Amino acid sequence: MLTAKGAATRRRIIDGAAAEIRDKGAATATLDDVRARTSTSKSQIFHYFPGGKEELLLAVAAREAERVLEDQQPHLDDLTTWQAWRDWRDAVIRRYEQQGVNCPLGVLITELGRSTPAAQALTTQLIEQWQAALRAGILRMQETGEADRRLDADRTAAALVAAVQGGVVILMSTGAIGHLEAALDTFLTLLRASGRARAR
Amino acid sequence: MLTAKGAATRRRIIDGAAAEIRDKGAATATLDDVRARTSTSKSQIFHYFPGGKEELLLAVAAREAERVLEDQQPHLDDLTTWQAWRDWRDAVIRRYEQQGVNCPLGVLITELGRSTPAAQALTTQLIEQWQAALRAGILRMQETGEADRRLDADRTAAALVAAVQGGVVILMSTGAIGHLEAALDTFLTLLRASGRARAR
Repeated sequence: MLTAKGAATRRRIIDGAAAEIRDKGAATATLDDVRARTSTSKSQIFHYFPGGKEELLLAVAAREAERVLEDQQPHLDDLTTWQAWRDWRDAVIRRYEQQGVNCPLGVLITELGRSTPAAQALTTQLIEQWQAALRAGILRMQETGEADRRLDADRTAAALVAAVQGGVVILMSTGAIGHLEAALDTFLTLLRASGRARAR
Repeated sequence: MLTAKGAATRRRIIDGAAAEIRDKGAATATLDDVRARTSTSKSQIFHYFPGGKEELLLAVAAREAERVLEDQQPHLDDLTTWQAWRDWRDAVIRRYEQQGVNCPLGVLITELGRSTPAAQALTTQLIEQWQAALRAGILRMQETGEADRRLDADRTAAALVAAVQGGVVILMSTGAIGHLEAALDTFLTLLRASGRARAR
Protein backbone atom coordinates (compact mmCIF):
# COMPACT_ATOMS: atom_id res chain seq x y z
CA MET A 1 0.00 0.00 0.00
CA LEU A 2 1.22 3.49 -0.82
CA THR A 3 0.88 6.33 1.65
CA ALA A 4 -1.27 9.27 0.52
CA LYS A 5 1.92 11.15 -0.31
CA GLY A 6 3.33 8.16 -2.20
CA ALA A 7 0.13 7.79 -4.19
CA ALA A 8 0.24 11.48 -5.06
CA THR A 9 3.84 11.20 -6.28
CA ARG A 10 3.02 8.12 -8.32
CA ARG A 11 0.07 9.92 -9.86
CA ARG A 12 2.25 12.96 -10.61
CA ILE A 13 4.74 10.75 -12.46
CA ILE A 14 1.93 9.11 -14.47
CA ASP A 15 0.33 12.43 -15.37
CA GLY A 16 3.72 13.88 -16.35
CA ALA A 17 4.53 10.85 -18.46
CA ALA A 18 1.08 11.04 -20.10
CA ALA A 19 1.69 14.68 -21.03
CA GLU A 20 5.19 13.87 -22.28
CA ILE A 21 3.84 11.04 -24.45
CA ARG A 22 1.03 13.22 -25.80
CA ASP A 23 3.71 15.75 -26.83
CA LYS A 24 6.45 13.45 -28.12
CA GLY A 25 5.01 9.99 -28.70
CA ALA A 26 5.48 6.84 -26.65
CA ALA A 27 8.58 5.61 -28.47
CA THR A 28 10.47 8.91 -28.18
CA ALA A 29 9.68 9.99 -24.61
CA THR A 30 12.42 8.95 -22.17
CA LEU A 31 12.41 8.40 -18.42
CA ASP A 32 14.79 11.38 -18.17
CA ASP A 33 12.17 13.58 -19.87
CA VAL A 34 9.56 12.36 -17.40
CA ARG A 35 11.93 12.92 -14.48
CA ALA A 36 12.65 16.49 -15.59
CA ARG A 37 8.99 17.29 -16.24
CA THR A 38 7.77 15.93 -12.92
CA SER A 39 10.74 17.07 -10.79
CA THR A 40 11.35 13.58 -9.52
CA SER A 41 14.56 11.62 -9.16
CA LYS A 42 15.54 8.50 -11.02
CA SER A 43 15.33 6.50 -7.80
CA GLN A 44 11.80 7.78 -7.17
CA ILE A 45 10.68 6.68 -10.63
CA PHE A 46 12.16 3.22 -10.13
CA HIS A 47 10.67 3.07 -6.64
CA TYR A 48 7.16 3.45 -8.07
CA PHE A 49 7.85 1.67 -11.35
CA PRO A 50 10.45 -1.05 -10.70
CA GLY A 51 9.85 -2.35 -14.24
CA GLY A 52 11.09 0.92 -15.72
CA LYS A 53 9.69 2.48 -18.87
CA GLU A 54 7.46 -0.47 -19.81
CA GLU A 55 5.74 -0.51 -16.44
CA LEU A 56 5.29 3.26 -16.58
CA LEU A 57 3.85 3.06 -20.11
CA LEU A 58 1.33 0.50 -18.89
CA ALA A 59 0.30 2.72 -15.99
CA VAL A 60 -0.11 5.66 -18.38
CA ALA A 61 -2.19 3.47 -20.72
CA ALA A 62 -4.42 2.49 -17.79
CA ARG A 63 -4.83 6.19 -16.96
CA GLU A 64 -5.70 7.06 -20.58
CA ALA A 65 -8.24 4.22 -20.59
CA GLU A 66 -9.86 5.69 -17.45
CA ARG A 67 -10.04 9.04 -19.21
CA VAL A 68 -11.93 7.56 -22.16
CA LEU A 69 -14.80 6.79 -19.78
CA GLU A 70 -14.39 9.89 -17.57
CA ASP A 71 -14.77 12.12 -20.62
CA GLN A 72 -18.22 10.57 -21.22
CA GLN A 73 -19.42 11.38 -17.70
CA PRO A 74 -21.76 12.28 -16.11
CA HIS A 75 -23.83 11.16 -19.11
CA LEU A 76 -22.53 7.60 -19.46
CA ASP A 77 -23.74 6.62 -15.98
CA ASP A 78 -27.11 8.31 -16.36
CA LEU A 79 -28.65 7.04 -19.61
CA THR A 80 -32.23 7.20 -18.31
CA THR A 81 -33.99 9.26 -21.01
CA TRP A 82 -33.50 9.80 -24.75
CA GLN A 83 -32.35 13.31 -23.89
CA ALA A 84 -29.65 11.80 -21.67
CA TRP A 85 -28.60 9.52 -24.54
CA ARG A 86 -28.35 12.55 -26.83
CA ASP A 87 -26.21 14.38 -24.26
CA TRP A 88 -23.95 11.33 -24.06
CA ARG A 89 -23.77 11.19 -27.87
CA ASP A 90 -22.72 14.86 -27.94
CA ALA A 91 -20.06 14.28 -25.27
CA VAL A 92 -18.58 11.39 -27.27
CA ILE A 93 -18.48 13.44 -30.48
CA ARG A 94 -16.95 16.40 -28.64
CA ARG A 95 -14.25 14.24 -27.07
CA TYR A 96 -13.16 12.69 -30.34
CA GLU A 97 -13.44 15.95 -32.27
CA GLN A 98 -10.96 17.45 -29.83
CA GLN A 99 -8.72 14.42 -29.98
CA GLY A 100 -8.70 14.24 -33.78
CA VAL A 101 -6.45 11.71 -35.45
CA ASN A 102 -4.19 11.24 -32.44
CA CYS A 103 -5.37 8.70 -29.91
CA PRO A 104 -3.02 8.64 -26.88
CA LEU A 105 -4.35 5.27 -25.76
CA GLY A 106 -3.92 3.80 -29.25
CA VAL A 107 -0.33 5.06 -29.38
CA LEU A 108 0.43 3.42 -26.04
CA ILE A 109 -1.23 0.12 -26.94
CA THR A 110 0.77 0.04 -30.18
CA GLU A 111 3.99 0.78 -28.30
CA LEU A 112 3.29 -1.90 -25.67
CA GLY A 113 2.43 -4.34 -28.48
CA ARG A 114 -1.27 -4.78 -29.09
CA SER A 115 -1.15 -8.55 -28.71
CA THR A 116 0.77 -8.59 -25.42
CA PRO A 117 -1.26 -9.95 -22.47
CA ALA A 118 -0.98 -6.66 -20.58
CA ALA A 119 -2.28 -4.58 -23.50
CA GLN A 120 -5.05 -7.08 -24.23
CA ALA A 121 -6.14 -7.12 -20.59
CA LEU A 122 -6.30 -3.34 -20.55
CA THR A 123 -8.33 -3.14 -23.76
CA THR A 124 -10.66 -5.90 -22.63
CA GLN A 125 -11.31 -4.17 -19.30
CA LEU A 126 -12.03 -0.83 -20.96
CA ILE A 127 -14.49 -2.43 -23.37
CA GLU A 128 -16.21 -4.34 -20.56
CA GLN A 129 -16.66 -1.25 -18.42
CA TRP A 130 -17.92 0.80 -21.35
CA GLN A 131 -20.31 -1.96 -22.38
CA ALA A 132 -21.61 -2.41 -18.82
CA ALA A 133 -22.52 1.27 -18.60
CA LEU A 134 -24.32 1.19 -21.96
CA ARG A 135 -26.08 -2.06 -21.00
CA ALA A 136 -27.41 -0.41 -17.84
CA GLY A 137 -28.76 2.42 -19.98
CA ILE A 138 -30.37 0.06 -22.49
CA LEU A 139 -31.95 -2.00 -19.68
CA ARG A 140 -33.38 1.19 -18.26
CA MET A 141 -34.94 2.15 -21.61
CA GLN A 142 -36.37 -1.36 -21.89
CA GLU A 143 -37.87 -1.15 -18.39
CA THR A 144 -39.67 2.05 -19.26
CA GLY A 145 -40.80 0.56 -22.57
CA GLU A 146 -38.76 3.07 -24.59
CA ALA A 147 -36.76 0.29 -26.26
CA ASP A 148 -37.89 -3.15 -27.40
CA ARG A 149 -37.68 -5.53 -24.42
CA ARG A 150 -36.89 -8.48 -26.67
CA LEU A 151 -33.44 -7.07 -27.49
CA ASP A 152 -30.54 -8.69 -25.65
CA ALA A 153 -29.28 -5.66 -23.71
CA ASP A 154 -25.72 -6.92 -23.39
CA ARG A 155 -25.31 -7.75 -27.09
CA THR A 156 -26.96 -4.46 -28.02
CA ALA A 157 -24.46 -2.66 -25.78
CA ALA A 158 -21.62 -4.66 -27.39
CA ALA A 159 -22.83 -3.59 -30.83
CA LEU A 160 -22.93 0.05 -29.74
CA VAL A 161 -19.39 -0.12 -28.31
CA ALA A 162 -18.24 -1.65 -31.61
CA ALA A 163 -19.98 1.06 -33.63
CA VAL A 164 -18.36 3.83 -31.59
CA GLN A 165 -14.98 2.11 -31.77
CA GLY A 166 -15.30 1.76 -35.54
CA GLY A 167 -16.26 5.41 -35.93
CA VAL A 168 -13.20 6.42 -33.92
CA VAL A 169 -10.89 4.19 -35.99
CA ILE A 170 -12.26 5.66 -39.21
CA LEU A 171 -11.74 9.14 -37.76
CA MET A 172 -8.14 8.27 -36.94
CA SER A 173 -7.59 6.79 -40.40
CA THR A 174 -9.27 9.44 -42.53
CA GLY A 175 -9.58 12.51 -40.32
CA ALA A 176 -13.38 12.61 -40.86
CA ILE A 177 -15.83 12.35 -37.94
CA GLY A 178 -18.90 11.64 -40.12
CA HIS A 179 -18.86 7.89 -39.57
CA LEU A 180 -18.78 8.25 -35.80
CA GLU A 181 -21.74 10.63 -35.96
CA ALA A 182 -23.63 8.35 -38.36
CA ALA A 183 -22.95 5.33 -36.16
CA LEU A 184 -24.24 6.99 -32.99
CA ASP A 185 -27.23 8.68 -34.64
CA THR A 186 -28.37 5.62 -36.60
CA PHE A 187 -28.01 3.33 -33.63
CA LEU A 188 -29.98 5.60 -31.31
CA THR A 189 -32.66 6.23 -33.96
CA LEU A 190 -33.14 2.49 -34.52
CA LEU A 191 -33.10 1.71 -30.80
CA ARG A 192 -35.70 4.36 -30.11
CA ALA A 193 -37.85 3.21 -33.04
CA SER A 194 -37.80 -0.34 -31.63
CA GLY A 195 -39.58 0.94 -28.53
CA ARG A 196 -42.17 2.90 -30.48
CA ALA A 197 -42.87 -0.11 -32.68
CA ARG A 198 -43.60 -2.23 -29.60
CA ALA A 199 -45.75 0.47 -28.07
CA ARG A 200 -48.30 0.39 -30.87
CA MET B 1 0.10 0.89 -70.24
CA LEU B 2 1.49 -2.52 -69.42
CA THR B 3 1.32 -5.40 -71.87
CA ALA B 4 -0.68 -8.43 -70.74
CA LYS B 5 2.58 -10.16 -69.89
CA GLY B 6 3.83 -7.08 -68.05
CA ALA B 7 0.60 -6.86 -66.07
CA ALA B 8 0.89 -10.54 -65.15
CA THR B 9 4.47 -10.07 -63.92
CA ARG B 10 3.48 -6.99 -61.91
CA ARG B 11 0.63 -8.94 -60.36
CA ARG B 12 2.94 -11.86 -59.58
CA ILE B 13 5.31 -9.52 -57.74
CA ILE B 14 2.43 -8.01 -55.77
CA ASP B 15 0.98 -11.41 -54.83
CA GLY B 16 4.44 -12.70 -53.84
CA ALA B 17 5.07 -9.61 -51.76
CA ALA B 18 1.65 -9.97 -50.14
CA ALA B 19 2.43 -13.58 -49.17
CA GLU B 20 5.89 -12.57 -47.92
CA ILE B 21 4.38 -9.82 -45.79
CA ARG B 22 1.68 -12.12 -44.41
CA ASP B 23 4.49 -14.49 -43.36
CA LYS B 24 7.11 -12.07 -42.08
CA GLY B 25 5.49 -8.69 -41.50
CA ALA B 26 5.80 -5.52 -43.56
CA ALA B 27 8.82 -4.12 -41.74
CA THR B 28 10.87 -7.31 -42.00
CA ALA B 29 10.15 -8.44 -45.57
CA THR B 30 12.85 -7.27 -47.99
CA LEU B 31 12.84 -6.77 -51.75
CA ASP B 32 15.36 -9.62 -51.96
CA ASP B 33 12.84 -11.94 -50.28
CA VAL B 34 10.19 -10.87 -52.77
CA ARG B 35 12.59 -11.32 -55.68
CA ALA B 36 13.50 -14.85 -54.55
CA ARG B 37 9.89 -15.81 -53.91
CA THR B 38 8.60 -14.54 -57.26
CA SER B 39 11.63 -15.55 -59.36
CA THR B 40 12.07 -12.02 -60.64
CA SER B 41 15.19 -9.90 -60.98
CA LYS B 42 15.99 -6.71 -59.13
CA SER B 43 15.69 -4.75 -62.38
CA GLN B 44 12.23 -6.22 -63.00
CA ILE B 45 11.05 -5.17 -59.57
CA PHE B 46 12.34 -1.64 -60.07
CA HIS B 47 10.86 -1.57 -63.55
CA TYR B 48 7.38 -2.13 -62.16
CA PHE B 49 7.94 -0.30 -58.86
CA PRO B 50 10.41 2.54 -59.51
CA GLY B 51 9.74 3.85 -56.01
CA GLY B 52 11.10 0.62 -54.52
CA LYS B 53 9.77 -0.98 -51.36
CA GLU B 54 7.42 1.85 -50.42
CA GLU B 55 5.70 1.79 -53.80
CA LEU B 56 5.44 -1.99 -53.65
CA LEU B 57 3.98 -1.85 -50.13
CA LEU B 58 1.36 0.58 -51.36
CA ALA B 59 0.44 -1.72 -54.27
CA VAL B 60 0.18 -4.66 -51.86
CA ALA B 61 -2.01 -2.59 -49.54
CA ALA B 62 -4.29 -1.73 -52.48
CA ARG B 63 -4.51 -5.45 -53.30
CA GLU B 64 -5.34 -6.35 -49.68
CA ALA B 65 -8.03 -3.66 -49.68
CA GLU B 66 -9.56 -5.23 -52.81
CA ARG B 67 -9.55 -8.58 -51.04
CA VAL B 68 -11.52 -7.20 -48.09
CA LEU B 69 -14.43 -6.59 -50.47
CA GLU B 70 -13.86 -9.68 -52.68
CA ASP B 71 -14.12 -11.90 -49.62
CA GLN B 72 -17.64 -10.54 -49.04
CA GLN B 73 -18.79 -11.43 -52.56
CA PRO B 74 -21.07 -12.44 -54.14
CA HIS B 75 -23.21 -11.43 -51.15
CA LEU B 76 -22.10 -7.82 -50.81
CA ASP B 77 -23.36 -6.91 -54.29
CA ASP B 78 -26.63 -8.78 -53.90
CA LEU B 79 -28.24 -7.58 -50.67
CA THR B 80 -31.80 -7.94 -51.96
CA THR B 81 -33.44 -10.10 -49.28
CA TRP B 82 -32.93 -10.60 -45.53
CA GLN B 83 -31.59 -14.06 -46.38
CA ALA B 84 -28.96 -12.40 -48.60
CA TRP B 85 -28.06 -10.07 -45.73
CA ARG B 86 -27.64 -13.07 -43.43
CA ASP B 87 -25.40 -14.78 -46.00
CA TRP B 88 -23.32 -11.62 -46.19
CA ARG B 89 -23.16 -11.47 -42.39
CA ASP B 90 -21.92 -15.08 -42.32
CA ALA B 91 -19.27 -14.37 -44.99
CA VAL B 92 -17.95 -11.41 -42.99
CA ILE B 93 -17.75 -13.44 -39.78
CA ARG B 94 -16.05 -16.32 -41.59
CA ARG B 95 -13.48 -14.02 -43.18
CA TYR B 96 -12.48 -12.40 -39.91
CA GLU B 97 -12.59 -15.66 -37.98
CA GLN B 98 -10.02 -17.04 -40.41
CA GLN B 99 -7.95 -13.89 -40.26
CA GLY B 100 -7.95 -13.71 -36.45
CA VAL B 101 -5.84 -11.05 -34.79
CA ASN B 102 -3.60 -10.44 -37.81
CA CYS B 103 -4.93 -7.96 -40.33
CA PRO B 104 -2.59 -7.78 -43.37
CA LEU B 105 -4.10 -4.47 -44.49
CA GLY B 106 -3.76 -3.00 -41.01
CA VAL B 107 -0.11 -4.06 -40.87
CA LEU B 108 0.57 -2.38 -44.21
CA ILE B 109 -1.27 0.81 -43.32
CA THR B 110 0.71 1.01 -40.07
CA GLU B 111 3.97 0.45 -41.96
CA LEU B 112 3.13 3.08 -44.59
CA GLY B 113 2.16 5.46 -41.80
CA ARG B 114 -1.57 5.70 -41.16
CA SER B 115 -1.64 9.47 -41.54
CA THR B 116 0.28 9.63 -44.84
CA PRO B 117 -1.81 10.87 -47.79
CA ALA B 118 -1.36 7.58 -49.69
CA ALA B 119 -2.55 5.44 -46.77
CA GLN B 120 -5.44 7.80 -46.04
CA ALA B 121 -6.54 7.78 -49.69
CA LEU B 122 -6.51 3.98 -49.72
CA THR B 123 -8.51 3.69 -46.50
CA THR B 124 -10.99 6.32 -47.65
CA GLN B 125 -11.54 4.55 -50.97
CA LEU B 126 -12.08 1.17 -49.31
CA ILE B 127 -14.62 2.63 -46.89
CA GLU B 128 -16.44 4.46 -49.71
CA GLN B 129 -16.73 1.33 -51.86
CA TRP B 130 -17.87 -0.78 -48.91
CA GLN B 131 -20.40 1.85 -47.88
CA ALA B 132 -21.73 2.23 -51.45
CA ALA B 133 -22.43 -1.50 -51.67
CA LEU B 134 -24.23 -1.51 -48.31
CA ARG B 135 -26.16 1.64 -49.27
CA ALA B 136 -27.41 -0.09 -52.43
CA GLY B 137 -28.61 -2.99 -50.29
CA ILE B 138 -30.34 -0.71 -47.78
CA LEU B 139 -32.04 1.26 -50.58
CA ARG B 140 -33.28 -2.01 -52.00
CA MET B 141 -34.79 -3.05 -48.68
CA GLN B 142 -36.41 0.38 -48.39
CA GLU B 143 -37.88 0.09 -51.89
CA THR B 144 -39.52 -3.20 -51.00
CA GLY B 145 -40.72 -1.78 -47.70
CA GLU B 146 -38.55 -4.17 -45.68
CA ALA B 147 -36.70 -1.30 -44.02
CA ASP B 148 -38.02 2.07 -42.87
CA ARG B 149 -37.95 4.47 -45.84
CA ARG B 150 -37.31 7.46 -43.58
CA LEU B 151 -33.80 6.23 -42.76
CA ASP B 152 -30.98 8.00 -44.62
CA ALA B 153 -29.56 5.05 -46.57
CA ASP B 154 -26.07 6.51 -46.87
CA ARG B 155 -25.73 7.36 -43.18
CA THR B 156 -27.19 3.99 -42.25
CA ALA B 157 -24.59 2.32 -44.48
CA ALA B 158 -21.86 4.48 -42.90
CA ALA B 159 -23.01 3.35 -39.45
CA LEU B 160 -22.92 -0.29 -40.53
CA VAL B 161 -19.39 0.07 -41.95
CA ALA B 162 -18.32 1.66 -38.66
CA ALA B 163 -19.92 -1.14 -36.64
CA VAL B 164 -18.15 -3.83 -38.69
CA GLN B 165 -14.86 -1.93 -38.51
CA GLY B 166 -15.21 -1.59 -34.73
CA GLY B 167 -15.98 -5.29 -34.34
CA VAL B 168 -12.85 -6.12 -36.35
CA VAL B 169 -10.67 -3.78 -34.29
CA ILE B 170 -11.97 -5.31 -31.05
CA LEU B 171 -11.25 -8.76 -32.50
CA MET B 172 -7.69 -7.70 -33.32
CA SER B 173 -7.22 -6.17 -29.86
CA THR B 174 -8.77 -8.90 -27.73
CA GLY B 175 -8.92 -12.01 -29.94
CA ALA B 176 -12.70 -12.31 -29.41
CA ILE B 177 -15.16 -12.17 -32.32
CA GLY B 178 -18.26 -11.65 -30.16
CA HIS B 179 -18.41 -7.90 -30.70
CA LEU B 180 -18.32 -8.26 -34.47
CA GLU B 181 -21.15 -10.80 -34.31
CA ALA B 182 -23.16 -8.62 -31.91
CA ALA B 183 -22.64 -5.57 -34.13
CA LEU B 184 -23.86 -7.31 -37.28
CA ASP B 185 -26.75 -9.15 -35.64
CA THR B 186 -28.04 -6.17 -33.68
CA PHE B 187 -27.81 -3.85 -36.66
CA LEU B 188 -29.66 -6.23 -38.96
CA THR B 189 -32.29 -6.99 -36.30
CA LEU B 190 -32.98 -3.30 -35.76
CA LEU B 191 -32.98 -2.51 -39.47
CA ARG B 192 -35.43 -5.29 -40.17
CA ALA B 193 -37.64 -4.26 -37.24
CA SER B 194 -37.77 -0.72 -38.66
CA GLY B 195 -39.49 -2.11 -41.76
CA ARG B 196 -41.96 -4.17 -39.79
CA ALA B 197 -42.82 -1.20 -37.60
CA ARG B 198 -43.67 0.88 -40.69
CA ALA B 199 -45.68 -1.94 -42.22
CA ARG B 200 -48.20 -2.03 -39.39
